[in-house]
Amino acid sequence: MPGRHFLQIPGPSNVPLRVLKAMDRPVINHRGLEFAGIAKALLDKLKAVFKTETGTPLIFPSSGTGAWESSLVNTLSPGDKVLAFEIGEFSAGYARAARSQGLEVEAVELDWGATIPPEVVYERLAADTGQAIRAVLTIHNETSTGVSTDIGAIREAMDRAGHPALLLVDTVSGLGCLDFRFDEWGVDVAVTCSQKGLLLPPGLGILCVSAKALRARERATTPRHYFDWGPMMAKNAEGYFPYTPATNLLQGLGEALDMLSEEGLEHVFARHARMAEGVRRAVAAWGLEVLAQPGARSNVLTTVKLPEGVDGDALLVESETHWDLSLGNGLGPLKGRVFRIGHLGDINDLEVLATLAGTELALRRMGVKVDFGAGVAACQQWFYANPLPGRVG
Amino acid sequence: MPGRHFLQIPGPSNVPLRVLKAMDRPVINHRGLEFAGIAKALLDKLKAVFKTETGTPLIFPSSGTGAWESSLVNTLSPGDKVLAFEIGEFSAGYARAARSQGLEVEAVELDWGATIPPEVVYERLAADTGQAIRAVLTIHNETSTGVSTDIGAIREAMDRAGHPALLLVDTVSGLGCLDFRFDEWGVDVAVTCSQKGLLLPPGLGILCVSAKALRARERATTPRHYFDWGPMMAKNAEGYFPYTPATNLLQGLGEALDMLSEEGLEHVFARHARMAEGVRRAVAAWGLEVLAQPGARSNVLTTVKLPEGVDGDALLVESETHWDLSLGNGLGPLKGRVFRIGHLGDINDLEVLATLAGTELALRRMGVKVDFGAGVAACQQWFYANPLPGRVG
Amino acid sequence: MPGRHFLQIPGPSNVPLRVLKAMDRPVINHRGLEFAGIAKALLDKLKAVFKTETGTPLIFPSSGTGAWESSLVNTLSPGDKVLAFEIGEFSAGYARAARSQGLEVEAVELDWGATIPPEVVYERLAADTGQAIRAVLTIHNETSTGVSTDIGAIREAMDRAGHPALLLVDTVSGLGCLDFRFDEWGVDVAVTCSQKGLLLPPGLGILCVSAKALRARERATTPRHYFDWGPMMAKNAEGYFPYTPATNLLQGLGEALDMLSEEGLEHVFARHARMAEGVRRAVAAWGLEVLAQPGARSNVLTTVKLPEGVDGDALLVESETHWDLSLGNGLGPLKGRVFRIGHLGDINDLEVLATLAGTELALRRMGVKVDFGAGVAACQQWFYANPLPGRVG
Amino acid sequence: MPGRHFLQIPGPSNVPLRVLKAMDRPVINHRGLEFAGIAKALLDKLKAVFKTETGTPLIFPSSGTGAWESSLVNTLSPGDKVLAFEIGEFSAGYARAARSQGLEVEAVELDWGATIPPEVVYERLAADTGQAIRAVLTIHNETSTGVSTDIGAIREAMDRAGHPALLLVDTVSGLGCLDFRFDEWGVDVAVTCSQKGLLLPPGLGILCVSAKALRARERATTPRHYFDWGPMMAKNAEGYFPYTPATNLLQGLGEALDMLSEEGLEHVFARHARMAEGVRRAVAAWGLEVLAQPGARSNVLTTVKLPEGVDGDALLVESETHWDLSLGNGLGPLKGRVFRIGHLGDINDLEVLATLAGTELALRRMGVKVDFGAGVAACQQWFYANPLPGRVG
Repeated sequence: MPGRHFLQIPGPSNVPLRVLKAMDRPVINHRGLEFAGIAKALLDKLKAVFKTETGTPLIFPSSGTGAWESSLVNTLSPGDKVLAFEIGEFSAGYARAARSQGLEVEAVELDWGATIPPEVVYERLAADTGQAIRAVLTIHNETSTGVSTDIGAIREAMDRAGHPALLLVDTVSGLGCLDFRFDEWGVDVAVTCSQKGLLLPPGLGILCVSAKALRARERATTPRHYFDWGPMMAKNAEGYFPYTPATNLLQGLGEALDMLSEEGLEHVFARHARMAEGVRRAVAAWGLEVLAQPGARSNVLTTVKLPEGVDGDALLVESETHWDLSLGNGLGPLKGRVFRIGHLGDINDLEVLATLAGTELALRRMGVKVDFGAGVAACQQWFYANPLPGRVG
Repeated sequence: MPGRHFLQIPGPSNVPLRVLKAMDRPVINHRGLEFAGIAKALLDKLKAVFKTETGTPLIFPSSGTGAWESSLVNTLSPGDKVLAFEIGEFSAGYARAARSQGLEVEAVELDWGATIPPEVVYERLAADTGQAIRAVLTIHNETSTGVSTDIGAIREAMDRAGHPALLLVDTVSGLGCLDFRFDEWGVDVAVTCSQKGLLLPPGLGILCVSAKALRARERATTPRHYFDWGPMMAKNAEGYFPYTPATNLLQGLGEALDMLSEEGLEHVFARHARMAEGVRRAVAAWGLEVLAQPGARSNVLTTVKLPEGVDGDALLVESETHWDLSLGNGLGPLKGRVFRIGHLGDINDLEVLATLAGTELALRRMGVKVDFGAGVAACQQWFYANPLPGRVG
Repeated sequence: MPGRHFLQIPGPSNVPLRVLKAMDRPVINHRGLEFAGIAKALLDKLKAVFKTETGTPLIFPSSGTGAWESSLVNTLSPGDKVLAFEIGEFSAGYARAARSQGLEVEAVELDWGATIPPEVVYERLAADTGQAIRAVLTIHNETSTGVSTDIGAIREAMDRAGHPALLLVDTVSGLGCLDFRFDEWGVDVAVTCSQKGLLLPPGLGILCVSAKALRARERATTPRHYFDWGPMMAKNAEGYFPYTPATNLLQGLGEALDMLSEEGLEHVFARHARMAEGVRRAVAAWGLEVLAQPGARSNVLTTVKLPEGVDGDALLVESETHWDLSLGNGLGPLKGRVFRIGHLGDINDLEVLATLAGTELALRRMGVKVDFGAGVAACQQWFYANPLPGRVG
Repeated sequence: MPGRHFLQIPGPSNVPLRVLKAMDRPVINHRGLEFAGIAKALLDKLKAVFKTETGTPLIFPSSGTGAWESSLVNTLSPGDKVLAFEIGEFSAGYARAARSQGLEVEAVELDWGATIPPEVVYERLAADTGQAIRAVLTIHNETSTGVSTDIGAIREAMDRAGHPALLLVDTVSGLGCLDFRFDEWGVDVAVTCSQKGLLLPPGLGILCVSAKALRARERATTPRHYFDWGPMMAKNAEGYFPYTPATNLLQGLGEALDMLSEEGLEHVFARHARMAEGVRRAVAAWGLEVLAQPGARSNVLTTVKLPEGVDGDALLVESETHWDLSLGNGLGPLKGRVFRIGHLGDINDLEVLATLAGTELALRRMGVKVDFGAGVAACQQWFYANPLPGRVG
């Protein structure tokens, strides 16, 4: 089929050509002289995007699910209690991963569309006078609902409760799109992966771990081998890895981190905020509703509720088949009832507008009464009135 | 700048990834065993796109301007008279190329926006009782004005006049976008290049020549060396070239011709017609005028007249600077007074809609009163009502 | 530095351009329509390379170390006993991975350079009258010593002992280079990865599991989540994955499997045998010794013993610095005492000869008295006398 | 066929991956803002490789044959006399190109294997008391024979004769491999192309022209259009081209020029001299003879005479079929009697040694009695004794 495909799912995001080129090269010797320099520089660059000077970044050949596992097996022991918040498919998945490792999960189930409320964190921790809770599992950006959580406020609640639990944060779809402050927020383990804000194809699980998390590792007895931080950190110190790393993805990661740095992290965040607002205005112009509660709406993706009787999965087949447009499907209990528009990573105004135009066409094919151009116009108006900084003219 | 650039000039068109990949490889030995097979297959595939069984395709490392030169120096002698039609920058350029080779040009100057009228061809040839005119220079698609000419009707006029002049056709921006029938139309020399409907980067000048043109070459005395057909045809017969060919572009050309064949030429033409109509409806929705006269409007590009006082060159700076959108500028006397939207080659509905959305934004920045989404909606409506054949659903 | 680097370590091997191109493309939607077809075809193609009709291939974003872990956590429970053979760095590593999951390892330590002796397998299993041993951990090709083990003979020994233990085989550097017969040999879990005989960059851990292994999974209580076969097989059945797969590597894998199939597996094995013999003859011509015991020498790599006083690590710096040649270092107790020449994957005669020429130069710089051209000539003589089948001429 | 092909013809040379990557990207707008900056920088970088401050570089989509034509049609008029030296296929071809434009060629025919003798240049010009000779056509490196000419000495002879003829130099296979000094040698037109020392695929004809040549253009009446310098220079001044340039090749050229600059031109020349000497020593070790006369042997390629009865074309089929090695064939009267080894561009020691090893194998298959490894060893000895500067160690 002629023309470029529009991959507007909420991750994997579109990989910039610069990053593809950086990976399209002969594999280098991962025990050679050149490699050590590359690896050390890379781990250093990762600190900037986590906004940390004290944390230690770690990279595993894995998906984000593997990085979840790594965050758990290194810090906790079978039977340990963790506090988890289930506000969507992925926060619930993090809790499931914990259970599968023999942890006891105190799960707080909330509406899918809600954020993690700092006051509930406070209450639960304040109630845990025996300090049985060893870790709080949170999610920076819930990709199934399009909801962001204020991790700084969670930290503040934990401090207010005076509770020593570790703060574990899934920022899989947050990092590189939304502001993340590892040091300032006192995060203990941040979990992410390559294929969202970090602009790569899938294949890398990435963590950042605090000194406190490293101390927890000393006591943690969960069996671990592949995802163990110990040998990884020991070899990383020399610029190497305990087993063969995903060399070409690492080279792509270096390029992607350079791109984020060249654009400037704050510009990256502002660009995401601007694109997200444009999309939300389009949704409103269509007369549809955003799933996420006001105040918690993500700048990474927008989950849109469909009118009764319209099947979201069928909508996606329409958009993909007729307009080369991949949108995200509803997950878990949301299956068929919503669709998700990804507006993250390496995209620009016209790609957002094309996505909206294609969504209008697909909605119409599903019988949803939207006016052609209505969403596009609302978004154009917003973009026009809020030009991107740094453009000439 | 994040995101993909929209290259919507009327050529070079967007090169498909498959074609880029076919070129991104080590150079092969152009005198080796593998090469001869590739070259022979390629020349054969070219025949299909010209719709010829009797013509001979030729490929030169050059631009379309070089292919013009090749069409002239091989068929004509200094002092020979040719009939030319100046209906835009490129048809006028072809006539200039003829003059620079010492040919006498009988030039018919028409409005920029007009097509070449078969009746004038008839009249001029009928008046040429001494048969001094040795060739008629025509243009299939005038890229500066967005005008197509009916070459079949030109041939019919020539036949009606009973005139033996050669029919030379510039189909630089036509071939691979618009139907072209070398054999049926009795074309003697067709001239094109790589970077429009043939989906490649610039760098190849391509011709197709008739037996009659080859006989003319025997008598033609214009000095020629680089663009001479003789040594080219002699070496081509063995699968080689008289000098080093642009190997990697040739490999890309093979891939591009496969893509056209897989889509099917008639589907390619129908897709261009559909996209063009969508764009023309958008222009009407903006309240602007298409330069080309009704009935002659090209399916390759649309040239749009700007309101008095709006500078087309400044408009292009706006679209490029703020929306990563390259549109075509006005050429020659049209400079600043029009802009051109390319809708050719490897593009799809959403790319056309994004182009329209970006054009609306840029027009607004220039003070032109267009409603956001108006052109987009007109085009969406058209696309929606006329689904592409061959799509599931 | 001008020119191409020679990556002649025993993996990662050189990635063919075709495979690099197959990965150098936009990420596709891993929940979309196109993806399911690709994934199903891919899993099917994997069966051919494992020579299985009954086994189930599985792919994880991980390294081979992760695939080890997957083979263990799905089939065994804490406290289970396994029989392991330590004949080099990687077989010992497999045993370590087992210990880290709480398994009891009965380790047979042998000379580094020895193969796994079927008779010892027989003796140990025959002695295990209580059938406490739940699995035998073996290695098809020990990459640290350049030793191959006859897995068919191991299976025969197990059958002779009438022991029901599972047969787990690390064929990380074997598959795609050496004959491997999952069904015929009654393998229960085969473990491999992407960057050796499968011609890809690192990043995929790949397994093939038998029905018996799947039954063992039902009883196995080792905690597992990321590497769990259950959800993987459930989603694979629909052409999807339980979490985001390493999309681009998967597309490369499809291309690599096509290449192996086009060359023909038996031709691939014969080519490796031929290259290996050429390298061994060169080593003999240098007056140096191969570490592996006769009869057990690998066709994938050759580990060469260095004369007393010559530091292997310094040798590698010479070859890399002066001749753009990466050779493999000595691992574990072999560090500095040997070097390893990889002769696997996508390479040809001249690349082997260049490697030998570069090794001669580097050996000379280390003071080893080898005659220039001696090893090259021995290998040329062998290649000359044994032309590759399938070449014209 | 597995493994990398060895392209060791005397051009096209191997294109570095960096250069391939620079071309594997979407076409940019050749009339856009970004392009002008790229083009201006590129023309500037070309000056460095020509060693000129006063000359004007020009780039045409064409081969070197087109650049020959450009050098002639811009500086000379029909009937003008030129002095040419026929010392091989390409110098003879340059003279033929001149004849085809209606020039009168005073041709000095010399042995194929000889250089252009400065004293003959002096004699011919001194004898031309009427100054009828308007240009001297020379060749810096004759690719068919492997002979270099001392252009500085030619200039000195011209000055000694006090003759005002233009000095035209074909440096197609010289520039970027051998020292070239446009200003110091008083060159008037230098002619080259993309696919030799400039490390690109074929497709660009490149010239550098002096102020004197530009003045000659004012008087020259040869018809010219495509290859005319006038419109080219006028548009180049603004960063554009008079017709669509070969955009992607231009982007590759920028990268290639950066690579030459990073290595350092003097290092590039020294590397070529070192590789050439290694090859010549190998030829001597084989007991074969180099065609070029001593003192004139090129550092770009070596033309080797074959023993009576050995067919050079058959030899090339052997090397290509059995060892993936492309060598150059004998041209014109040398057809079948010699073969050519290219040792230019982006190659390193091991690639040269692999080429020699493959040549030995192919020679043996043709029945030539060479000892395996003999040529390789001679070259190794030379490389070993003459390490490349700039390597650590």
